[in-house]
Amino acid sequence: MATQDTATDWAGDARNASPDGEFVRDTTYIEDRISPSVSEPTAQDDGTFFWPMEAGHYRLVAARACPWAHRAVITRRLMGLEDTLSLGLASPTHDVRSWTFDLDPGEVDPVLGTKRLQEAYFNRFPNYPRGITVPAIVEESTKRVVTNSYNTIVRDFITEWTDFQRAGAPDLYPTQHAEEMEKLNEYIFHNINNGVYRAGFAGSQEAYEKAYNQLWEALDFVEERLGTQRYMVGDHITETDIRLFATLIRFDPVYYGHFKCSREKTAEMPNIRGYLQELFQIPGFGDTTDFTEIKQHYYMVHTEINPTKIVPVGPDMSWLAQPHDRDRLGGAPFAEGTTLPGALPAGEHIKNPEQFQINLFGPAVAGK
Amino acid sequence: MATQDTATDWAGDARNASPDGEFVRDTTYIEDRISPSVSEPTAQDDGTFFWPMEAGHYRLVAARACPWAHRAVITRRLMGLEDTLSLGLASPTHDVRSWTFDLDPGEVDPVLGTKRLQEAYFNRFPNYPRGITVPAIVEESTKRVVTNSYNTIVRDFITEWTDFQRAGAPDLYPTQHAEEMEKLNEYIFHNINNGVYRAGFAGSQEAYEKAYNQLWEALDFVEERLGTQRYMVGDHITETDIRLFATLIRFDPVYYGHFKCSREKTAEMPNIRGYLQELFQIPGFGDTTDFTEIKQHYYMVHTEINPTKIVPVGPDMSWLAQPHDRDRLGGAPFAEGTTLPGALPAGEHIKNPEQFQINLFGPAVAGK
Repeated sequence: MATQDTATDWAGDARNASPDGEFVRDTTYIEDRISPSVSEPTAQDDGTFFWPMEAGHYRLVAARACPWAHRAVITRRLMGLEDTLSLGLASPTHDVRSWTFDLDPGEVDPVLGTKRLQEAYFNRFPNYPRGITVPAIVEESTKRVVTNSYNTIVRDFITEWTDFQRAGAPDLYPTQHAEEMEKLNEYIFHNINNGVYRAGFAGSQEAYEKAYNQLWEALDFVEERLGTQRYMVGDHITETDIRLFATLIRFDPVYYGHFKCSREKTAEMPNIRGYLQELFQIPGFGDTTDFTEIKQHYYMVHTEINPTKIVPVGPDMSWLAQPHDRDRLGGAPFAEGTTLPGALPAGEHIKNPEQFQINLFGPAVAGK
Repeated sequence: MATQDTATDWAGDARNASPDGEFVRDTTYIEDRISPSVSEPTAQDDGTFFWPMEAGHYRLVAARACPWAHRAVITRRLMGLEDTLSLGLASPTHDVRSWTFDLDPGEVDPVLGTKRLQEAYFNRFPNYPRGITVPAIVEESTKRVVTNSYNTIVRDFITEWTDFQRAGAPDLYPTQHAEEMEKLNEYIFHNINNGVYRAGFAGSQEAYEKAYNQLWEALDFVEERLGTQRYMVGDHITETDIRLFATLIRFDPVYYGHFKCSREKTAEMPNIRGYLQELFQIPGFGDTTDFTEIKQHYYMVHTEINPTKIVPVGPDMSWLAQPHDRDRLGGAPFAEGTTLPGALPAGEHIKNPEQFQINLFGPAVAGK
């Protein structure tokens, strides 16, 4: 467990530093799960609880800005769980205490009735001492947080909520690739997903350069791998691709400049570029990506690295809507029999669509 | 004349802001000139002085980091004035008072005998109230600053120091293009050379976006112009290209991220990319460019926009050494009869050559 620093350890961007200036993410979460095996909250041997699995009972609280939450939003949509779990969206620019619902009418989440996600954490643990993070699953009736364990939330959407998934949902965690995926997920987490944060929040030039070099070793590995296969594992999109996408889609707008990961842009790496183009163009990916909120979050919240709070206008991301060349590698996004997600649910359009997103996904992406 | 702010108005990066948050550069300089028409310092009608033109009498003080000084360093080399004016090089990370000579043995300029360029300004004007800027020309015997007017210094290297220029020096200010150059120089100064600073030092989101839009309108204009002609004016390299080069070569390493000018990199604009490749590969341009010092300056000195002082490792600039496609537009870098500058003078190698610079210019670029 990482050292606690309550002054700065919040909202998913834990700001812990080891004595040599290296950023260490707080990886302790509320590890409860929702399970079809129980009918009421039930204590498990490890001290966590299982909560009953029911449609219309839970709310997924996310933020367009956050890569960890974005994974859950993409997976919910690919698996067709939109009618099963509702979606609450915090605004990009939370304060030091919590993510807030500034974008909702009256600045209050319409289901939870609160201004701050923090309250749902306090409803569960009155003196909750850790970061108020998204994604979180909240029980709608009691407004208590059930879990904020982002890896488990996504995995359970894939492997536990099976009775509620849409017909034609993809298999995002194919058993025959499980071992390879676990290994890759771990490597990608350390060096890329969290690697960009280790570069951006480094407390010394040395710690930054170490993180930068590890990140780029991993990105070179990914670029090379995607030169001979269409997706990270097997012949179709898996959870591993979702994890990678949520970070890489933020790379050019944020991590490149704000976190100083700037050897090259993803747009300059031919295989990663094509890979991101293909994924972005699939419903669930590009229609849940709000570049304005992404940039606002990082540039306005991290005042210790951007004290002016000025948010860049660029970069031009319209290349994401251009034709990709991934067909040359064979395979297809999903296995035979899988269908694409349906239209965006009412009220779930992104608030700041770019023109190329409207061209790509139609006016519904903008709520029209 | 811009509002004075002695606390922050120094070293060439005047930090004045108008009431709406717009950055306003202090454009008042010491406007004395060195002229073949006088044999001792001689007052002119406008209150400035003309100083006698002599070889071995003056020292050009520059810094590898600074784009305004880089213009003078490039021009001195193209015109073959290396033996006529000596070169002093301040370190990239000056303090709030002055550029300093931290890179020299004993941290003292070997000719001026001082740690700080400020002393040469004070030798001339004991209470000099403005920014201590490079480039500056200093009289070696009295260690007094003669001028820091960067436009005039460059222009005089081209049009006044004619008796001292090398055989085969280019004509960088051809009379038949003078009017067009003046117009372009003015436009490029406002929107690009100083435009990047107006974006980076903007005090409000609105002022930043205004500067960003003006900058990109100008860069689009340059990109389009360079699609049909090899250089900015006429058929050969001119002073206008030198002015543009000194800013654009810093764009990807600094202005893109640090100043948030990030619509695209110059590496992504095909005509500007080829133009920079060609210029960089010509002695005088790429062999006087020190990317490490450039990045150190901006990222370590502007703590109000980069409080961590962490200097990015990237970007990869090795594309500058790759073949360019500018021959397709006809023309040639210099008019017939012009020759390239000779080898770098002893002691004038860049301190942090990239491997691709050594490959391009040979080991002398690294002082070997």
